[in-house]
Amino acid sequence: MSISKRHDDHPSLQPVAGNGLLDRRALLGRGIVFAGAMSAGGAGSVVGAAAEPLVDGPWSNEVGAVIPPYQVASRFEKDVVRTVDNPDNLPRNSRARTPHHLLQGMITPNGLHFTICHGGVPDIDPDKHRLVIHGLVKRPLVFTLDALARYPMVSRIGFVECGGNSAPLFSNEPIQANVQALHGLASCSEWSGVLLSTLLEEAGVDPKAKWFIAEGADSPRLHRSVPMKKAWDDAMVALYQNGERIQPGQGYPMRLWLPGYEGNMNVKYLRRIMLTEGPAMGYYESRTYSQVLPDGKAYRFYFLQEVKSFISNPSPGLTLREPGFYEISGVAYSGTGRITRVMVSADGGKSWAEAALQEPVLPKAFTRFRMPWRWNGGPAVLQSRAWDEGGNVQPTRAEIVAHRGQTSRPPSVLAFPSQHYNGPTSWAVDGKGEVKHVYA
Amino acid sequence: MSISKRHDDHPSLQPVAGNGLLDRRALLGRGIVFAGAMSAGGAGSVVGAAAEPLVDGPWSNEVGAVIPPYQVASRFEKDVVRTVDNPDNLPRNSRARTPHHLLQGMITPNGLHFTICHGGVPDIDPDKHRLVIHGLVKRPLVFTLDALARYPMVSRIGFVECGGNSAPLFSNEPIQANVQALHGLASCSEWSGVLLSTLLEEAGVDPKAKWFIAEGADSPRLHRSVPMKKAWDDAMVALYQNGERIQPGQGYPMRLWLPGYEGNMNVKYLRRIMLTEGPAMGYYESRTYSQVLPDGKAYRFYFLQEVKSFISNPSPGLTLREPGFYEISGVAYSGTGRITRVMVSADGGKSWAEAALQEPVLPKAFTRFRMPWRWNGGPAVLQSRAWDEGGNVQPTRAEIVAHRGQTSRPPSVLAFPSQHYNGPTSWAVDGKGEVKHVYA
Repeated sequence: MSISKRHDDHPSLQPVAGNGLLDRRALLGRGIVFAGAMSAGGAGSVVGAAAEPLVDGPWSNEVGAVIPPYQVASRFEKDVVRTVDNPDNLPRNSRARTPHHLLQGMITPNGLHFTICHGGVPDIDPDKHRLVIHGLVKRPLVFTLDALARYPMVSRIGFVECGGNSAPLFSNEPIQANVQALHGLASCSEWSGVLLSTLLEEAGVDPKAKWFIAEGADSPRLHRSVPMKKAWDDAMVALYQNGERIQPGQGYPMRLWLPGYEGNMNVKYLRRIMLTEGPAMGYYESRTYSQVLPDGKAYRFYFLQEVKSFISNPSPGLTLREPGFYEISGVAYSGTGRITRVMVSADGGKSWAEAALQEPVLPKAFTRFRMPWRWNGGPAVLQSRAWDEGGNVQPTRAEIVAHRGQTSRPPSVLAFPSQHYNGPTSWAVDGKGEVKHVYA
Repeated sequence: MSISKRHDDHPSLQPVAGNGLLDRRALLGRGIVFAGAMSAGGAGSVVGAAAEPLVDGPWSNEVGAVIPPYQVASRFEKDVVRTVDNPDNLPRNSRARTPHHLLQGMITPNGLHFTICHGGVPDIDPDKHRLVIHGLVKRPLVFTLDALARYPMVSRIGFVECGGNSAPLFSNEPIQANVQALHGLASCSEWSGVLLSTLLEEAGVDPKAKWFIAEGADSPRLHRSVPMKKAWDDAMVALYQNGERIQPGQGYPMRLWLPGYEGNMNVKYLRRIMLTEGPAMGYYESRTYSQVLPDGKAYRFYFLQEVKSFISNPSPGLTLREPGFYEISGVAYSGTGRITRVMVSADGGKSWAEAALQEPVLPKAFTRFRMPWRWNGGPAVLQSRAWDEGGNVQPTRAEIVAHRGQTSRPPSVLAFPSQHYNGPTSWAVDGKGEVKHVYA
């Protein structure tokens, strides 16, 4: 056991919910003794002396490598990559999923941001790329990248999530997969660019315009229809991602970013915005992205990515090696606004305790939540449930299935329903510390 | 001219300071007409039609590339790199500087974060690396990376800046160099790791301990002394940078992060923390990092990176092509806390206007400031000046030089004084739109 007797009377070490959840104050570390460290034995006391057990690796005794112009990850991190489901680039969609179980904080590094491409990753020459704004405007306009650089910019940290993220949770049996496979189609970056409203002010909007249709320059020319309300709210023509130019998988040289809206509407390789009276009902939105309901009807549009959370640590593949203290952490987010509360359970939903939210808590952005937990070595079922500032809460899986149905197909051939799952995810920890996906 | 007559009466378009600075409200784009866009002529109105001047590049008509497991920047961005001043890895320091003039927002992407290495970049095996906490503690402890993963973590967005950043501005003549060369030794990331206080709670601190000495595992074994107060405040053993593991140039697999403190104290490749009664006065802190003053005395310690700002756009190398609207933007930061105000001048300090601060404004982090400007095509001198929540303001260059001296050496051989320059930077724009470094 990791908690010594002399500390057990500290108030933050008293369980606040079943199966070992501790008060958030335990995260401050005051009075808690963790399991991780070993005694240092005869560690020395003179700076410069080779104190046992200070170990000199070869790196301590030789000159290191030359600094590269563009820094890359250590070769020891070669497995921290996205999973790519179409490595042979067959003529279908390609997805690359973010390895949430290996990440921390709220920012997804650019190398690991998820992407979905319908025709591979295009190699666009930014000097030849143009953005056209036309349709129901007074002055149709064409923008080069240099021209856009003249406009006032904004920066904002926020998530993008595919409407099909978490689709495996519609399966009638819990699919055994890790958090990357289940929830890897969501990521969070700082985006910088020009507000669409700034460009529309210049073009002059015809009052008849109720929608705009955004189209990409890659070969599928994916286009989606968006209500004008979003254009006047917070839609952005994004040019930078975490400080540098948007990367090819994210729409280089520019993408539409609609904070909180379904991923595919954030059209990549953006080449035009056409203002219209009605939606286009183009191929992708009529066929691919219209969720069919059990009664045969379909959602025509489903803009919002609703409030959601999942635990990334522990999660499948991250085995607990011994009983004792662990931090449960994960991400919560909502297309509506800020996360206000995340509750965590270690007993499959019988009892709950409130997690700590990592500051800054920003609207429509990942919020990292943390929960101190003392694992007693027995079975546990970990869950999280998030609330947003709109008063919304994650529905239970049963509520979602009752309304939207579920699929009984084999795990690798998921079909409808497959979109906008925002229920909880349950991880069962067994007596060996192994973690599995369960419904609870 | 970019501002049409019909808009000139909009209140936000009236200059608020000399030489064309506009009210911050002009950033909202309401009522302003910018110079950037071209008329679109006969842009079509049917989705799917190839409307003039929509241009299909080859990327619009062929399948793109396979999605890579780890995404990298477009080949068209190959010049967005750090400048490396020791590419042959000669036996001296190596520096890599952040290209601020090519970035946006507050986050520096990991590939472009500045670094200084005293013995190259070590190739550390994380499984063999250990962190020892010893000296004036009750229980000396040794931590593996796996052990640290068990502790409560925190995440925080903040800057690191070399004490020698901006050293060229001590020269008695303005050195002609771009913002990367002058200010490229500062960057800002989201760091995640374990608070040092959490680990010290477990080790148990002897009340006699007033300092701790942090030492790196790379061959120079750089070590610095830090007052215990910082350990109890916000010192972090950082493990992740913008979500992924810290990169080799930033101290992989772990570094000390002391928010707001001089860069080199944020010891990389951290292998031990020794608690002591007094400072070590080791080689690096006695010789390299003790700033000598004009009277021959020296600062023994200079912990804080004080309030500072610089304009990154426009800046040398980014030529203004024609008169009209531009956004002046840059970064401000302070080791004391939050930035509260940034003032911008376009007439060399004769008049000033308040810039907009990009939310979120976080303590000890980059804050992007933005100022709308209508360049009339004539000479201008751009400056910024920042205030922090401690009431501190950037000193003038004259004030710094009066106290600390200046150097008359050739630009490439800078010596003392060379540290902790936090005065303003002045960019002169000439009638051709070219930008130079001046003292004003």
